[in-house]
Amino acid sequence: MSDILILSEEQLRGRIHLDAALIDVIENAFAALAGDAVVMPPVLSMHLPQVNGEVDVKTAFVPGLPGFAVKISPGFFDNPAKGLPSTSGLMVVLSTETGRVRAVLLDNGYLTDLRTAAAGGVAARHLSRPDASRVTIMGAGVQARLQLRALQIVRPITAATIWARDPAKAVALAQQITRDGLPARAETDPRAAVAGADIIVTTTPATAPILRAEWLQPGQHVTAMGSDQPGKNELDPTALARADLYVADRLAQTRIMGELRVAIDAGVLSPPFAFPELGQIIAGQHPGRSTDAQITIADLTGTGVQDTAIASHALSKFA
Amino acid sequence: MSDILILSEEQLRGRIHLDAALIDVIENAFAALAGDAVVMPPVLSMHLPQVNGEVDVKTAFVPGLPGFAVKISPGFFDNPAKGLPSTSGLMVVLSTETGRVRAVLLDNGYLTDLRTAAAGGVAARHLSRPDASRVTIMGAGVQARLQLRALQIVRPITAATIWARDPAKAVALAQQITRDGLPARAETDPRAAVAGADIIVTTTPATAPILRAEWLQPGQHVTAMGSDQPGKNELDPTALARADLYVADRLAQTRIMGELRVAIDAGVLSPPFAFPELGQIIAGQHPGRSTDAQITIADLTGTGVQDTAIASHALSKFA
Repeated sequence: MSDILILSEEQLRGRIHLDAALIDVIENAFAALAGDAVVMPPVLSMHLPQVNGEVDVKTAFVPGLPGFAVKISPGFFDNPAKGLPSTSGLMVVLSTETGRVRAVLLDNGYLTDLRTAAAGGVAARHLSRPDASRVTIMGAGVQARLQLRALQIVRPITAATIWARDPAKAVALAQQITRDGLPARAETDPRAAVAGADIIVTTTPATAPILRAEWLQPGQHVTAMGSDQPGKNELDPTALARADLYVADRLAQTRIMGELRVAIDAGVLSPPFAFPELGQIIAGQHPGRSTDAQITIADLTGTGVQDTAIASHALSKFA
Repeated sequence: MSDILILSEEQLRGRIHLDAALIDVIENAFAALAGDAVVMPPVLSMHLPQVNGEVDVKTAFVPGLPGFAVKISPGFFDNPAKGLPSTSGLMVVLSTETGRVRAVLLDNGYLTDLRTAAAGGVAARHLSRPDASRVTIMGAGVQARLQLRALQIVRPITAATIWARDPAKAVALAQQITRDGLPARAETDPRAAVAGADIIVTTTPATAPILRAEWLQPGQHVTAMGSDQPGKNELDPTALARADLYVADRLAQTRIMGELRVAIDAGVLSPPFAFPELGQIIAGQHPGRSTDAQITIADLTGTGVQDTAIASHALSKFA
């Protein structure tokens, strides 16, 4: 056991943060995914209706990194009534050379929160207009706050608008953001909330659209990151047809658990689904946004390559 | 971190053994699998040809147990040249109530070895003749020794024969078994090795048959436990057609990574594959062996429910 590094959530929170370096790490991971050397199997998803829970396991092998992560993410949705967060979990880091356990990161989902927000920053860096300054966040949870922070790292953000199903939570988050130094307001009408935004990020566990296609305006970029399970859905499926550019974090995933799934099921899109992945745009294999007037959508379901990337990044801080 | 129990391989080896109690634990787990409350998703399998490795992740949720395991099993086949065992890994135990991490069992595959052997004992208890006394083991690795031990717990074993691709290893294992108190001999001809055996256990990583159908004799029981990946194969596919009873640990798995896969691919068997699972026989939903003259085959690929069962058993020893 002595050669296995075991890190607590507290240790990880002390040293790993959402910063420009982390966004670069996640960007490089997506770029690697556009090559053919990364091995990323389908997500293992276990649904546990008996306990109102689910467990996802994600992993990816990235040649060149000393280790790769296997991440276990439980979501137990009766936990808040017990005074516990819904999500928790850990990452196990295995040696790329021998497969042996190098580290156990008992992060309770902290690293997942960070790598998810960092992916939003990467998407905005490559898909939003370079001068994007006005952000609308839909949702008022942990990701609402973190996604906004990631955007502030990659774009000259000057104002934020918050919409949430629970208006009180939107108000509380807007006040917190304002206290932290960015002018923010809560908006109860979702259409008004997204009007005039340069970047819209949906961060909810919604199972029916919260963003209508007809509300979208030229030049807007949308990152939808709430859907990570079949059954979840934040965007009106016709939004994907209306957009000039739809980008998946991983098409094999968004087809079964992202916004793309809903658009396919609704018959809005039909095969072949020749959409680029975020990594292909980063790697220069696809041009990405080509005019300021285009509407772009990034559909993020969360990938194992992000987990391996942040786990390696975290271990480098404890070497 | 203080409320998470972390156990080393040494601690686990000190308290958890292959004994009658463990075989009962694994038997109960298979019986639970025959009900409809267990949730056991498909195995996550990652193939890593770049490093001659693979990683499997298995899990199962068993209502009534306080926790469930997510097991990560790496196999890196260049390790022996580096002085390391090919297999390693760990089990993470999550709370059935909240999904939060309860324990990390850094067993390096030890618990997997035990639960795999225990399944062989369960299969023999329910499928071999009650008076089965002569065992032939094909293979000479860790499972060869452990499978024999499990059989000695459930049947009145009086003699063992060992065949292995490397005759020297067969001789060494036979000598060790004899020293341990059971008369054993090595046999270089596989046909002669299995002639007269009551129970045959195949424990190899073979990718082509090592046991021919025409060698099988009335009354024999065969447990094939080496195949746990598509591409592995120990039994002549016609053996499955010749057997009076074929039993899977889990049909959804043996169809894609067990002996059944090979028989299907060879066109020896055709749908519907109405074979019983081991748990159904334990639970009395299928009669199992009905005469002494029948030839029976158990196809064991290794199931998440075994991992959850042994992890819970292990934790009970450290409570």
